[in-house]
This record gives sequence, structure tokens and C-alpha cells, in this order.
Amino acid sequence: MARVIVDVMPKPEILDPQGQAIVRALPGLGFEGVTSVRQGKRFEIEIDGGDPAAIARQAAEALLANPAIEDFTVHLDG
Amino acid sequence: MARVIVDVMPKPEILDPQGQAIVRALPGLGFEGVTSVRQGKRFEIEIDGGDPAAIARQAAEALLANPAIEDFTVHLDG
Repeated sequence: MARVIVDVMPKPEILDPQGQAIVRALPGLGFEGVTSVRQGKRFEIEIDGGDPAAIARQAAEALLANPAIEDFTVHLDG
Repeated sequence: MARVIVDVMPKPEILDPQGQAIVRALPGLGFEGVTSVRQGKRFEIEIDGGDPAAIARQAAEALLANPAIEDFTVHLDG
């Protein structure tokens, strides 16, 4: 059983309204100095057999990420 | 300028219907062997000045995570 992490983030050129809303909210909560927030998704996946990293990469391309607007990275956990 | 990553995941005892939907969808797309998917959020944060990891941790507690149902980790990027 392998544990694989897939991180999916909006491409740099894509607007991220959720991240921008967080940047705007933080000063009102007393946080200074936060200049940028980008929000993405993190998947923790358990895979039994095969090549776990390759399976996770193909699943990211097929289902977890939208390649038009998102980049992803895959790494084995631990 | 420091870059800090905040990963927010549902606590283990919390149901994750998004992750479960992905597990159920994958066999139909030809993926075998995926036994568990947990979906969370990843924040890439840029912070100018202060103690970036401490600021990010406080922001996670205040805004990015719901401590009733989510755990988070903070680490400096690079």
C-alpha cells in the first residue's frame, strides 16, 4: 500500500478569486504582510499495487486536475 | 519575502464525500487499486516580514482551516 500526494494548483496566469478574498480578509483579522495567497487542492491517495506514482499521475490528468487551468505535482508520501 | 505552504485536510474521523466520489469514479475510468482518496486544500502564501511560519499558522487557525473538522500543517517552501 503506497500513499501518494497530488497537489493541484491554479496555473499562475489564472485568476484565483478565493485566494484574493483571503488576502483581502487577513488585515481585518490583524494579519499584516501577507501579499499573496493561492488556493488549490491536495489529494492523499492510497494505492495498492502497480506503479503508484504513475497511477496517481494518470488519475490527476483524467480526473483530479483540469489541465486547462490547473497544474499538478505528484509525490510519494514518506 | 517567504513562501509558506499550508495544507488543510479533513480530520480522519470526518467523512469526505468528495474523496469517496473520486474513489468510486476511478474504476470506471480504468484505474484499479485506488483504495482511498482524501481531498483537502493547499494554500501557497507569500509573507513579507515578521515570522512567516507563525503568521501562516495563526492565519490557518483563524481563517484557512475549520479546527472542528480539519487538521492543518504549515511548512516553509524551499
